[in-house]
Amino acid sequence: LKINAITSPSNPLLKQIRGLHERRAREKSRLFLVEGAKPVAEAFEKRLRIKDVVVSNAYLSAHPDVVHGADLKAISVVDDKLFKEISTTTTPAGVLAVAEMPQYVFADLFQSNRTPLIVVAHAIQDPGNLGTIIRAALAASVTGIVLTKGTVDPFNPKVVRGAMGALFALPIVCDVDYPEAAAQLKERGLRVFACQPGAERNYFQVDWRQPAAIALGNEGQGFSPADLQQADELISIPMNPQSESLNVAVSAAIVLFSAVQQRLTGS
Amino acid sequence: LKINAITSPSNPLLKQIRGLHERRAREKSRLFLVEGAKPVAEAFEKRLRIKDVVVSNAYLSAHPDVVHGADLKAISVVDDKLFKEISTTTTPAGVLAVAEMPQYVFADLFQSNRTPLIVVAHAIQDPGNLGTIIRAALAASVTGIVLTKGTVDPFNPKVVRGAMGALFALPIVCDVDYPEAAAQLKERGLRVFACQPGAERNYFQVDWRQPAAIALGNEGQGFSPADLQQADELISIPMNPQSESLNVAVSAAIVLFSAVQQRLTGS
Repeated sequence: LKINAITSPSNPLLKQIRGLHERRAREKSRLFLVEGAKPVAEAFEKRLRIKDVVVSNAYLSAHPDVVHGADLKAISVVDDKLFKEISTTTTPAGVLAVAEMPQYVFADLFQSNRTPLIVVAHAIQDPGNLGTIIRAALAASVTGIVLTKGTVDPFNPKVVRGAMGALFALPIVCDVDYPEAAAQLKERGLRVFACQPGAERNYFQVDWRQPAAIALGNEGQGFSPADLQQADELISIPMNPQSESLNVAVSAAIVLFSAVQQRLTGS
Repeated sequence: LKINAITSPSNPLLKQIRGLHERRAREKSRLFLVEGAKPVAEAFEKRLRIKDVVVSNAYLSAHPDVVHGADLKAISVVDDKLFKEISTTTTPAGVLAVAEMPQYVFADLFQSNRTPLIVVAHAIQDPGNLGTIIRAALAASVTGIVLTKGTVDPFNPKVVRGAMGALFALPIVCDVDYPEAAAQLKERGLRVFACQPGAERNYFQVDWRQPAAIALGNEGQGFSPADLQQADELISIPMNPQSESLNVAVSAAIVLFSAVQQRLTGS
């Protein structure tokens, strides 16, 4: 493994990495950043294409086997000050990878031999929420995720951090129109359930052993009336009337784990 | 209602508010900050003692009835620049209240006539997580919350924001030693369930119709072996082996809503 020392802030790789903090550069290059030892290890493990790895001096001294087992021919090392400039966190972990975005099409959502269980995140705005939804979705063994147009970029560094590796372990189809997503899922035989506060049907009354999609709406606005019509059924989580609402990622997890329970126990 | 214009950054009230950004000043004065129109309205509604309300000029012009119905004799108004200095958010809402911390003792957790369901947050570090746990706990109709020593301050502005009013709607006992909390809950006839990844018993196999406490451990460390011994039973959430863990607030919500389902359906 070759180790390149980079000392100039205007080095092209460091410039590229700083650019990847922004969505526009990520979309143009189809590259994104993975930060931290565990996420980087996950990215290698899940066979993402890693273009570059940059570590800080301090990190390299503490972890000389940083990219052990990877196909990478070389890594770059910078001092802590330069690392701070390329990191998107205030307390950088000292290791960062530039990876190619995995790209999925709709058919990839149906590669699993399990009964389909798909999360549709519709116009979710907060990167922390989207990361938590993806992490919970993997834990609940979903077979795939659909992100509609208007949803925060899943390759936003905060989403990548929040998803904790789950981003690399699931087929995620991005940038689909919501009605198109609902139509395609129904065509594949899934029943589409939209979470809508106040809906009469409780989530736990649904038979989740059937092929199903769980659609979650925007944090503030939920679904538009037209979008609600695309669902086969609206479901809600019964809650204390004193409580105004649940966080969207929390709602997603509650409904998803109801499906886990039913699928595990068979009832 | 009297309106005091404040123009000096060294005004004692503004100095006090800036001080309340820090835990030390909050603990000394037993005061904390509530920011945003909805949380401030909730604080009034739940009869918190509000010592002061400060609004920005812009907010006051847009909402002349800002503290309508409150007992407050006067509010203070500052320009947007000064408001930004007293706010704990980067995009201030323009309204902020100084409130007395509600104080609860253990007996307050048992004032409800419902079957006790209590959340014990043990050494939860992240304010966002604690806020989300409190919000989910209210939605799940818990009868109270216990925060152990080592848990982030519930009056931290990020917790107050994340809890979205739920902080004012529930009895919350703070700063209890974990073994002491477990002992007191058991003495009151509750069964204490500690969430522990890998525990043999699934959360949904528990009969949540009994008086119960759900204990959640620190994000990174979970429970110490000694603390685990305090629980009557350890429970886990079955999850995809590819997935490493669930966010602690998400775990709390999954278990809590299993209790909601059982208590609603009676089975």
